[in-house]
Amino acid sequence: MNSLTTVGQKIPKRDAPPKAIGAAVYIQDMKVPGMLHGKILYSKHPHARILKLDTSRAEKLAGVRAVITAADMPSTFRIGVMKDNPPLKTGKVLSIRDEIAAVAATSPEIAEEALSLIEVEYEVLPGIFDPIEAMKEGAMLLHEETKSNVLKLPWKLVCGDVEAAKKEAVFIVEDTFSTPWVTHCCLGTSGCIAQFDTNNNLTMYSNTQIPSLAQNDYIEALNAFGLKNKRVRIVQCVIGGGFGSKLDTYSYEYIAIRLSLKTRKPVKIIFSREEEFFATSPRQCTITKISHGCDREGRLMFREIEMVLDNGAYTSWGATTPSVMMLPISSLYKVPNVKYTAKCVYTNNTYSQAMRGYGNPQATFAIESSLDQLAEIAGIDPYELRLKNANEPGEVTPQRFKITSCGMKECIEEVVKRLNWKGKHGRGAGRGVGMASLIHVGGGARVYKSDGCGTIIKMDDFGKVDVFTGASDIGQGSETIIAQIVAEVLGIPIDDVNVINNDTDICPWDVGVHASRTTFVAGNAALGAALKIKSQVLEAAAKLLEEDPAYLDIKNGIVFSTRNKEKSTPLGKALRKAHYTLGGKMLMAEYFYDPKNENFDKEFKGNLSVSYAYGTHGVEVEVDKETGQVKILDYVAAHDVGKAINPLLLEGQIYGGGLQGVGYALGEKMVYVNGELKNGNFLDYKIPTAKDVPPMQAVIVETDEKDGPFGAKGIGEPGLVPTAPAIANAIYDAVGVRIKDLPITPEKVLKALKGKEKIG
Amino acid sequence: MNSLTTVGQKIPKRDAPPKAIGAAVYIQDMKVPGMLHGKILYSKHPHARILKLDTSRAEKLAGVRAVITAADMPSTFRIGVMKDNPPLKTGKVLSIRDEIAAVAATSPEIAEEALSLIEVEYEVLPGIFDPIEAMKEGAMLLHEETKSNVLKLPWKLVCGDVEAAKKEAVFIVEDTFSTPWVTHCCLGTSGCIAQFDTNNNLTMYSNTQIPSLAQNDYIEALNAFGLKNKRVRIVQCVIGGGFGSKLDTYSYEYIAIRLSLKTRKPVKIIFSREEEFFATSPRQCTITKISHGCDREGRLMFREIEMVLDNGAYTSWGATTPSVMMLPISSLYKVPNVKYTAKCVYTNNTYSQAMRGYGNPQATFAIESSLDQLAEIAGIDPYELRLKNANEPGEVTPQRFKITSCGMKECIEEVVKRLNWKGKHGRGAGRGVGMASLIHVGGGARVYKSDGCGTIIKMDDFGKVDVFTGASDIGQGSETIIAQIVAEVLGIPIDDVNVINNDTDICPWDVGVHASRTTFVAGNAALGAALKIKSQVLEAAAKLLEEDPAYLDIKNGIVFSTRNKEKSTPLGKALRKAHYTLGGKMLMAEYFYDPKNENFDKEFKGNLSVSYAYGTHGVEVEVDKETGQVKILDYVAAHDVGKAINPLLLEGQIYGGGLQGVGYALGEKMVYVNGELKNGNFLDYKIPTAKDVPPMQAVIVETDEKDGPFGAKGIGEPGLVPTAPAIANAIYDAVGVRIKDLPITPEKVLKALKGKEKIG
Repeated sequence: MNSLTTVGQKIPKRDAPPKAIGAAVYIQDMKVPGMLHGKILYSKHPHARILKLDTSRAEKLAGVRAVITAADMPSTFRIGVMKDNPPLKTGKVLSIRDEIAAVAATSPEIAEEALSLIEVEYEVLPGIFDPIEAMKEGAMLLHEETKSNVLKLPWKLVCGDVEAAKKEAVFIVEDTFSTPWVTHCCLGTSGCIAQFDTNNNLTMYSNTQIPSLAQNDYIEALNAFGLKNKRVRIVQCVIGGGFGSKLDTYSYEYIAIRLSLKTRKPVKIIFSREEEFFATSPRQCTITKISHGCDREGRLMFREIEMVLDNGAYTSWGATTPSVMMLPISSLYKVPNVKYTAKCVYTNNTYSQAMRGYGNPQATFAIESSLDQLAEIAGIDPYELRLKNANEPGEVTPQRFKITSCGMKECIEEVVKRLNWKGKHGRGAGRGVGMASLIHVGGGARVYKSDGCGTIIKMDDFGKVDVFTGASDIGQGSETIIAQIVAEVLGIPIDDVNVINNDTDICPWDVGVHASRTTFVAGNAALGAALKIKSQVLEAAAKLLEEDPAYLDIKNGIVFSTRNKEKSTPLGKALRKAHYTLGGKMLMAEYFYDPKNENFDKEFKGNLSVSYAYGTHGVEVEVDKETGQVKILDYVAAHDVGKAINPLLLEGQIYGGGLQGVGYALGEKMVYVNGELKNGNFLDYKIPTAKDVPPMQAVIVETDEKDGPFGAKGIGEPGLVPTAPAIANAIYDAVGVRIKDLPITPEKVLKALKGKEKIG
Repeated sequence: MNSLTTVGQKIPKRDAPPKAIGAAVYIQDMKVPGMLHGKILYSKHPHARILKLDTSRAEKLAGVRAVITAADMPSTFRIGVMKDNPPLKTGKVLSIRDEIAAVAATSPEIAEEALSLIEVEYEVLPGIFDPIEAMKEGAMLLHEETKSNVLKLPWKLVCGDVEAAKKEAVFIVEDTFSTPWVTHCCLGTSGCIAQFDTNNNLTMYSNTQIPSLAQNDYIEALNAFGLKNKRVRIVQCVIGGGFGSKLDTYSYEYIAIRLSLKTRKPVKIIFSREEEFFATSPRQCTITKISHGCDREGRLMFREIEMVLDNGAYTSWGATTPSVMMLPISSLYKVPNVKYTAKCVYTNNTYSQAMRGYGNPQATFAIESSLDQLAEIAGIDPYELRLKNANEPGEVTPQRFKITSCGMKECIEEVVKRLNWKGKHGRGAGRGVGMASLIHVGGGARVYKSDGCGTIIKMDDFGKVDVFTGASDIGQGSETIIAQIVAEVLGIPIDDVNVINNDTDICPWDVGVHASRTTFVAGNAALGAALKIKSQVLEAAAKLLEEDPAYLDIKNGIVFSTRNKEKSTPLGKALRKAHYTLGGKMLMAEYFYDPKNENFDKEFKGNLSVSYAYGTHGVEVEVDKETGQVKILDYVAAHDVGKAINPLLLEGQIYGGGLQGVGYALGEKMVYVNGELKNGNFLDYKIPTAKDVPPMQAVIVETDEKDGPFGAKGIGEPGLVPTAPAIANAIYDAVGVRIKDLPITPEKVLKALKGKEKIG
């Protein structure tokens, strides 16, 4: 490992220069000859019966090429995880984002005008906007075919015996925490272009995070439309942010497909910023009842959690986040007895989706806030409690996760040291420190039947390679990381590696960009293909150099003998020799990597990931008692990353994640009142911007994961996971109030301070 | 072979529907964001000294972004086969198509206007327009650094002893034949878009026939421009005809590159139809002195040819056509003693390029005309002379071509039978029949150091495949042929095969579309990759079916046991089983095929191709003695094709080639007078159109070439090769005049008839 030349270097992201000069082509920039523009008419009410829907005036508008309603869709066709979502609604609307009609026209303006000509009459119905209400006996059912608003989902995990542990525990805390809807705020809004060829094969220009799975979704749709055995190609434009929002396919995509099929023209639908706010799916909001207990020495004895999640009117991946929440619930710190149940409940609110961390931030907010409460009643410094219970290499957790590399203790200690924890904790007086840790999948996550990724490499006559990978780059930098891995293996400059990652016709299969899996899984796939082609290179050079290939290696584009300095050749020369020969050959290789992780069994146990990522965030805050304003004075984010393939990008993930976490902790919330979004714009929905960046230290703890490419683990999501509880804990340390409901706004802090004064 | 399901079927060309409805994207249709438009200023004189070149007014025109001259090009940078062609000329211009300046502007109209503002003063110089003149002692030298206008090219072939054979021959004929410049008449004119990324890597949107070689040409140019170690990507649009015209890179491409580099914008250059006529490179014109001798029985004893080719002012591949001419000269019919020399001579005319047949039509015109003369003096029916001397399987020709499959005799006999030769030949009276045969490479042609082609295949979960091939489709149908071969091997419907063939980043290397090599070479490459992936499929299915893979096969998407009918599974099921398993895999394969043919040795001997294609055309004409007009009454084109992968496309090649040959025989000629083209448009340059199609029968003679994919050989060029001599021979049979100078216009026939009357 000492001799690494490209891996481990701070190499700037490849997509940065074209993005900086405006050369990157986003879906917004894409034009296809003959393209029409689609627009969608949404419901005016969160719950209503459609009495009349008249599109005739819209159809007559000059420039309108098609108007579609539910009647244009196959009547039984549904999308989403539970197949409960018709892309165009008829009869009743169940949420404010319900799509009821759509237009394709020669310009977006004409399409917009046509929407205004569609006449809809509603009978407004009372709605249910609170999952607790929706669970009550006799509550109105959102989906009449179901018997309850609680979704039939099996979210229950039992490890050990919590009841017994409760009896033995010396210290027990119990409390309830809640988190709001927050949204991804991708700067590139959602959009697609659907285009059919003369054989009715579909090309979808898209910014999906799951090209291979979206392909299957669309094939299913084409089947429903009567187009059997067709080909679907997904071409990804440059993606302006994903964060989990693009892990599913949505109504607008099927609407574009239907409009394209009806008009025989390519149809583009691009969301406005307003649509991006109200018509995409946010992080699911949660109400979490949590109980923790420990023995006299502070050793954790049990953890019990009951959770309610507002599912909204339809179901996307948000409803499955409890499966990932099980990871921190069962395995963040050593805790032998665990019980967890979660209920996802239909309401007339918006429906949710995956978002960075996939439930982990919600669960970790409750766990890490509760742990500080436990430390307090047990009379132990919160950092000592954490250190005492920290995960360790070689551990097998109650949910059967096999911990390989684990730098959790090092992360805690880095935070303690760099934050001067011992000098600052417990002093109150408006200033305080807090910490929180995380566990996350770091070596893939077998949530689908395959967790694989394919890679193809071909090499030209000069040693330059083209790498086709299934792994999409949604801005996280996977293109650069894969180029580094391949360059390192092949001993060539990184500029000689071209990565192609945006076309299902060309790129091998990949399950998608989620679960912080790309560096690990796609990295290993690229590594495997590069090793295969390297052995071909060495064989070719062996002939030229008359040397045993076992004694050959490549560095800086030179193939050389490791035992005889006389024997070396420029890589290109060996390649041309192998090519320009009778029966010559150019080098190509393919490799498919599927990690040795496990799907959960029926009890939700199994080794989900080949390795796990750890981290601890520590924060120092100052709280203004007059205003409730929280100011972050210092922020240390220490992460166990295995090996840092590219410290620059890795720090970027930590800074970006941390700042997104600060938004989650202190400011972001989608304000829904009776099913209507009240702050769907960047003026009223506050995300931290450049001026809000606190002083942040990203600390890289390297642990060398044996199964990772060059020892690496995933880091895409973790930066966001422990931020909110670390801040909440710091606020408590500063002013003695604990905010249990995110975001921690000045109003809430002030109210809590006043409440405390009254009591005090 | 009995059980073929896709190979051998008349499957329509895949690109036909999009072309028919206007959905195909040609370079003309391509738009790239921010694109500028380039235009070129050509010389006004075929030979002149540039006294002044002032671009200042052009530069000031609003919308003009750059004006370049030779000063913007590296002073020593030259392009072309002999590196004698600076992309922009300075000092002296040597031909009417010499590029002297170029403009990039925001619209083509502004660029055009800017050209008119460039001021040039010339000193007109006398030119040389006749290669015979140019060869004379003391002639003005086109390129002052050379010592002679005759190019230093080694075109000389000697087989056996012609002098000795001459002494022994009983019948000898000698005559001189000539052929004109004709042009490819691609309906899609030449054009490209040059675009640099932020790293100065070049993407060239192009309609080249040689993406892999063009890539090298551009890399060389970038090196000359000081851009070292850059990547070049060639993306081919749909190509509106090639016919050899796009086998080289041209000045306009380097001009686009330079303009793009100067403006930092994509620059598009598209030729107008006028430019396409005068500024592209036609088929080289020839003057051929030929002598043939045979014994009393008509067995050929020798063939001697001396040829002069007008090279024009610069050198492209036209100058190398003599190497391919050697094939018919040495090996069309059995002829033991052969001598051939050719001289390419610089003149102030246009310079030439490859065109369908690559010299073979010129050589075959002389050979087959001369053979009829020989038959006449030997008193043998021309068809008998041909049959007696026809090539045969197993033969090794004097130039060391190893004849494998050979259906020449069958082709001759098909023509004789279908034309009712015996009832029609030798009757005169204004009607006559003629025939001519051809030999051509049919199994690749090792003219470059590699004759290879690579293929990558990946298969999805449903058995659909993407095939990346190096072989470009320039309209000849290779995409369809490759899809058929892969579908046949894998036992899947042809619609399940997607062929990707237009992007050097994605497609493996291929030497280019020339020498009728694509079905054979790229077909074998696709076959090899398909067989590799098939064996993976069978292994996967073997596990599922618990059967030895040796006993498994695939048909119609079903994998089945050949010995146990109970055991079968849909292909997709086996694939998904292999994929959705721990350690699963999706199937991919790569294969590089380089045929076992040989580069010529220094004497131009060696087995250039793995197999050879044969054909005989027979034609019946009626000649109007009053007008000289020739009417084709019947036309039989019999071709030995190995195995017809797709008879529909094959017939298309024969019809298209035959009709192009009719144009060559009877009408087409670029009229150059003192270096200036006088008929550079479709009104004055007459190509046969739909209404000129004579009754044509395409006869497919199948011979099953053992090395060909499913037994196939090449057929891209042959359809054009023997047309002109067959028609010339028929005219002679009809009216007793022999036209030795193409095209055979009514004027020439009439003049010959009148001359004959005088003599008679």
